Amino acid sequence: MEKLGLIAGAGGLPLEIVRACEAAERPVFVLRLLGLADPALTEQPGVDVGLAEWGKMFSALRRAGCRQICFAGGVPRPDFANLKPDLRGLASMPRVLAAARKGDDALLRQVMHEFEQEGFVVEGADTVITGLTIGDGPLGRIAPGEADAADVDQALRVARTLGSLDIGQAVVVANGLVLAVEAQEGTDAMLQRCADLPRALRSRGARAAGVLAKALKPIQDRRIDLPTIGPETIEAAARAGLVGIAGEAGSLLIVDRDRVIQTADDLGLFVVGVPSP
Amino acid sequence: MEKLGLIAGAGGLPLEIVRACEAAERPVFVLRLLGLADPALTEQPGVDVGLAEWGKMFSALRRAGCRQICFAGGVPRPDFANLKPDLRGLASMPRVLAAARKGDDALLRQVMHEFEQEGFVVEGADTVITGLTIGDGPLGRIAPGEADAADVDQALRVARTLGSLDIGQAVVVANGLVLAVEAQEGTDAMLQRCADLPRALRSRGARAAGVLAKALKPIQDRRIDLPTIGPETIEAAARAGLVGIAGEAGSLLIVDRDRVIQTADDLGLFVVGVPSP
Repeated sequence: MEKLGLIAGAGGLPLEIVRACEAAERPVFVLRLLGLADPALTEQPGVDVGLAEWGKMFSALRRAGCRQICFAGGVPRPDFANLKPDLRGLASMPRVLAAARKGDDALLRQVMHEFEQEGFVVEGADTVITGLTIGDGPLGRIAPGEADAADVDQALRVARTLGSLDIGQAVVVANGLVLAVEAQEGTDAMLQRCADLPRALRSRGARAAGVLAKALKPIQDRRIDLPTIGPETIEAAARAGLVGIAGEAGSLLIVDRDRVIQTADDLGLFVVGVPSP
Repeated sequence: MEKLGLIAGAGGLPLEIVRACEAAERPVFVLRLLGLADPALTEQPGVDVGLAEWGKMFSALRRAGCRQICFAGGVPRPDFANLKPDLRGLASMPRVLAAARKGDDALLRQVMHEFEQEGFVVEGADTVITGLTIGDGPLGRIAPGEADAADVDQALRVARTLGSLDIGQAVVVANGLVLAVEAQEGTDAMLQRCADLPRALRSRGARAAGVLAKALKPIQDRRIDLPTIGPETIEAAARAGLVGIAGEAGSLLIVDRDRVIQTADDLGLFVVGVPSP
């Protein structure tokens, strides 16, 4: 298999991709984004790069013989005024800044486009590793009940609408009421906010209620920034008193699947994939 | 003029309506919602009522000779399990609960409908007092610049879309990016969240950027829950580092207008009304 250039942001996904490539005997070269990539990735062939050192990235990938590349892991929206671009990064900056003003999705598209202009071919994380996304139905032992299933459907519908406006990927719905919507604060802060809401908004009689849904933005290129959950998402949802998490089958990335299932089963949450419309 | 039955929630709006009625020599009778209504309202003819004491409300309004009523002031979504309804409130509860499950707007519509079924006629706060809503153009001395005006347009557009999903009325946009969306946490908590976001997201070069927009939900009955701002909204927006506030001309209620203008001018924020589409 062709060598993969992995551009690694924060979280467990990049390492998971490296392990999957090892298992498949696919060679990998890692561009470790400074301050974001998991330190464990320094054991892999690769280099540390700043977010705007595009000249360094392009030449490192070429020297390593990578044409296929994959973006994986979280990258918070940068403070463009404090970026330290190299010459090649500087040349792209006006186009990147113009895109950034249109929203997160436009920004990511422009970054991908700049790499493609240099001859690189972008693979989605879910095509590098198969079986990384959620399937159709419950992931663990617990399945949503009827009332929860209505919240699942509504939460996914609202998430897709918000995504089409390039606002965010995540939303929490309980008993038909939208409790919280993710924008720039991210999923964890949104879940913390839900934990602070009155209990009555997150219950159905004596039982808990509330579903976190994460959905692909209908406008986004699915090769970058797929909606993602990991064990810590399950824990944060449990702290918020929610009963489950939902995503679109084939589009929600599950990082550290075994621990996700174990954590969800232990904490009594469902994690469910629903066919996208 | 016909006597007005004022159902008073939190904030300065109910008192402002009382003062306007006094000036117009219109008699008022106040149902002071327990734990919410401004204590200053106890000087007015009226009674204290719990949120679900509808029998008490209906008979008090009738005894006072009120047919016209007006809902004004904030009412947080209640914990229905802890409400203490009287017999009449209990009779309405199944219908109110069913509506509450569909969203805030459905809930408010049902409450209005229950009062109308009893023969009361609901007036909007903006028809009781004219000149309470924002007009077309800047309210104070400061007007939005060109780049800010683009944020104003986008923020209002996004707010209307969120409103059509019955999510919330408020949104913050900076440089074309949606920073935060209001759901059940309310406008103040959303603005606090913006204050916690990285500065770079709320600036344009060396200048500050970011606009709070509040818009009528396209689905809502405009006689209840009009989007509202007061002096404390201006202060919270300033703490969040925003440059201005926008609403739809004729639909955004300005509570304590003189202080709103003074505060905005002092803090350097614009407050602008834009014709609704």
